[in-house]
Amino acid sequence: MASTIFTQIPFQSKSSNKFLNTHFVPSFKLPVSLSFKPRTALPKSLRVRAGLIEPDGGKLVDLHVPEIERELKKREAASLPRVKLTEIDVQWVHVLSEGWASPLTGFMRESELLQTLHFNSLRLDDGSFVNMSVPIVLAIDDSQKESVAESNSVALVDSDDELIAVLTDIEIYKHPKEERIARTWGTTAPGLPYVEETIKNSGNWLIGGDLEVIEPIKYNDGLDRFRLSPMDLRREFERRNADAVFAFQLRNPVHNGHALLMTDTRRRLLEMGYKNPILLLHPLGGYTKADDVPLSWRMKQHEKVLEDGVLDPETTVVSIFPSPMHYAGPTEVQWHAKARINAGANFYIVGRDPAGMGHPVEKRDLYDADHGKKVLSMAPGLERLNILPFRVAAYDKTQGKMAFFDPSRAQDFLFISGTKMRTLAKNKENPPAGFMCPGGWQVLVEYYDSLTPSEDGRIPEPVPA
Amino acid sequence: MASTIFTQIPFQSKSSNKFLNTHFVPSFKLPVSLSFKPRTALPKSLRVRAGLIEPDGGKLVDLHVPEIERELKKREAASLPRVKLTEIDVQWVHVLSEGWASPLTGFMRESELLQTLHFNSLRLDDGSFVNMSVPIVLAIDDSQKESVAESNSVALVDSDDELIAVLTDIEIYKHPKEERIARTWGTTAPGLPYVEETIKNSGNWLIGGDLEVIEPIKYNDGLDRFRLSPMDLRREFERRNADAVFAFQLRNPVHNGHALLMTDTRRRLLEMGYKNPILLLHPLGGYTKADDVPLSWRMKQHEKVLEDGVLDPETTVVSIFPSPMHYAGPTEVQWHAKARINAGANFYIVGRDPAGMGHPVEKRDLYDADHGKKVLSMAPGLERLNILPFRVAAYDKTQGKMAFFDPSRAQDFLFISGTKMRTLAKNKENPPAGFMCPGGWQVLVEYYDSLTPSEDGRIPEPVPA
Repeated sequence: MASTIFTQIPFQSKSSNKFLNTHFVPSFKLPVSLSFKPRTALPKSLRVRAGLIEPDGGKLVDLHVPEIERELKKREAASLPRVKLTEIDVQWVHVLSEGWASPLTGFMRESELLQTLHFNSLRLDDGSFVNMSVPIVLAIDDSQKESVAESNSVALVDSDDELIAVLTDIEIYKHPKEERIARTWGTTAPGLPYVEETIKNSGNWLIGGDLEVIEPIKYNDGLDRFRLSPMDLRREFERRNADAVFAFQLRNPVHNGHALLMTDTRRRLLEMGYKNPILLLHPLGGYTKADDVPLSWRMKQHEKVLEDGVLDPETTVVSIFPSPMHYAGPTEVQWHAKARINAGANFYIVGRDPAGMGHPVEKRDLYDADHGKKVLSMAPGLERLNILPFRVAAYDKTQGKMAFFDPSRAQDFLFISGTKMRTLAKNKENPPAGFMCPGGWQVLVEYYDSLTPSEDGRIPEPVPA
Repeated sequence: MASTIFTQIPFQSKSSNKFLNTHFVPSFKLPVSLSFKPRTALPKSLRVRAGLIEPDGGKLVDLHVPEIERELKKREAASLPRVKLTEIDVQWVHVLSEGWASPLTGFMRESELLQTLHFNSLRLDDGSFVNMSVPIVLAIDDSQKESVAESNSVALVDSDDELIAVLTDIEIYKHPKEERIARTWGTTAPGLPYVEETIKNSGNWLIGGDLEVIEPIKYNDGLDRFRLSPMDLRREFERRNADAVFAFQLRNPVHNGHALLMTDTRRRLLEMGYKNPILLLHPLGGYTKADDVPLSWRMKQHEKVLEDGVLDPETTVVSIFPSPMHYAGPTEVQWHAKARINAGANFYIVGRDPAGMGHPVEKRDLYDADHGKKVLSMAPGLERLNILPFRVAAYDKTQGKMAFFDPSRAQDFLFISGTKMRTLAKNKENPPAGFMCPGGWQVLVEYYDSLTPSEDGRIPEPVPA
């Protein structure tokens, strides 16, 4: 099996030094009473190692049925009880099938869900922990549960009744909706997008088990070529002789502030002695809320950013991360980071309020903007990952370009909010020169141009990273 | 310092076998996809070790100011900003001061709170985890925060302005009330007793730091002699030459079902080769909700149970656990277990729905009755503790006594609910012979007799364990 080649790569040893210092946020106040591992600056002479970071659990999971067994598996599946998957369920099958959630081998059973909800991590055989902060579960309703009856396996089919996968050695257990929501989001306020979309009206039962995925999930939307699996990405990083891989998760258009911190990160990794740090620019491709810019437009925009030379294609891999978005802030950012370990990244860039959003009911952000990076730096199972928190970038009027915000001369900086950006793009006006490359901006103008205002004359509001 | 004597006790090595089998609940279905540590039966010939289990962090915390320094500390404290403690805050000072929460040395700072909320555990210097599932935090309001200003320490005073402790090297941070509630209880429904009592109207800030407690906390309620510290308990277990200590947490009257499982546990520990297993009968003494039987009545009842010979005083230590009650089910049961490790217990008895209650709004239990023992068995930092789940006991009509419920002859059993017990005690009727020892029952009758019905004619409802 192809994935075994990675088990021969030497284990990346732990580094207790998780934060770079310059141009990144200084590490937050450390606990004094518990002698918590200090997160001081990485030494300039960090020892550079060959080989990519080992996947969680030591082996990258691949849940695809070997091509030679497909027909047999399909015939076997024909006699099994069927469970119909939603689009988002299929996205999770995709995520699981390629090993983003390694060592998970299928939808969570109850013991895995409980560990995820209470500990944001799973304990392995050897007593060590891997991070797992977001429940990856499959809900079924009472009648589906009844139809499964005593079967040990079920066939998972899509909305067209096409066979997607077989779930074996199943376990059906109660879907603790309220508890799942409260422990994942830290609120049960109505209006959480993922909750409204996938949990609120879902079944009262969860079905866990091991997945056997009939063939690789494709979306046929012209973007499948960007959907590299963790294995594909590892191959690509090796082909490029990467000695460091730094991942940037995003779900928004790239502006020059993002570009600044990505190029700055590379520069600093070179300074530390890495010879060839590769950027994984990794837009999230699964479910996003209605007011986010859709994936297809974001990908067009990202392509322009590379074409316009804002990022160097030689040292950048653009790929789509197939996960749906939870908007669960500090809980979810752990998932975003953990999945990238499995794709070979050993550095993870984290900004202000990662995976956050406004509180759905109260007039405030749902999460403290600093909790994401704090939680990430302390999370069980992420010890091997170097966390790179960054200062927010803003438009520096004195330089006429995006720069790291300097609070000592706050008056020189202009924050261009989502509302501002939308208004400009909608009115076909230009942002200040240097905010975004012209090609990328043009894509945004076209996107907002394409939107038909809804009946109340309002169009969805984009939210910047 | 007295606590150092325990650092010389050899470290209790891990046991991967956490569940006894006979007469206890069979271990729940195990995850298959992740090779999770199997929880099979303890071998009959478990190796018996000398010495008590090591406290969390290796050393029992003692936060009392040495007597010789008290006067100086008081004089110093006179010039510090003051923070007034509620009764429940004082209970937490008590808990912290005696090392129940070892290695915590004071009210949590933000990094500790975040680890507790997200991971139910704290990471130590050496990379290992100790369990810590319940936030131990001190809330202050805006004006208190302002009065603290730039001070590095504050004086903590009780409602009479008596100095209780000094909190040093303080950190003030936002009190994320909604998130704290959601992540601790798995719900934000109104009506959670601890939330209504301590969080809802508390300040918007939390103040963490290291505690220096002026003198041991006393309640002067005639029960202080039962309030043994973890150090006192360890001394007592050593005095009795205990080679195993099994803890039973409770907040309700002891009936013969409880007694059955405690004596049965001792019998089984003897069978396993322990020579002198000691029971720690450990009623919770801090805040409980209004409809629980008050501590003073429970202690009278427990005394009768011992007097009546239901439990053997030679092998039983009755002591009060000073913690307030959260009623946070699977999250809180970890705290209940972890604190008992610090008191020297290496076996922990866990029942159905530990620390649970009815959902405050919906007509169902707040927690799945099995989640408590499942979460407990998987919790980070509790690996050294042997978890003893037990079957529910009920009144066996064929035997005329409490017995382990046998579902194959369910019709033979009578469950005596809280309502039933209350109605009987209130009407001065007797329960079936063998439900509770007569002396203990008499205490309950007196308790309900002492209650003056409130205006609507209702009296609080006791809830059995």
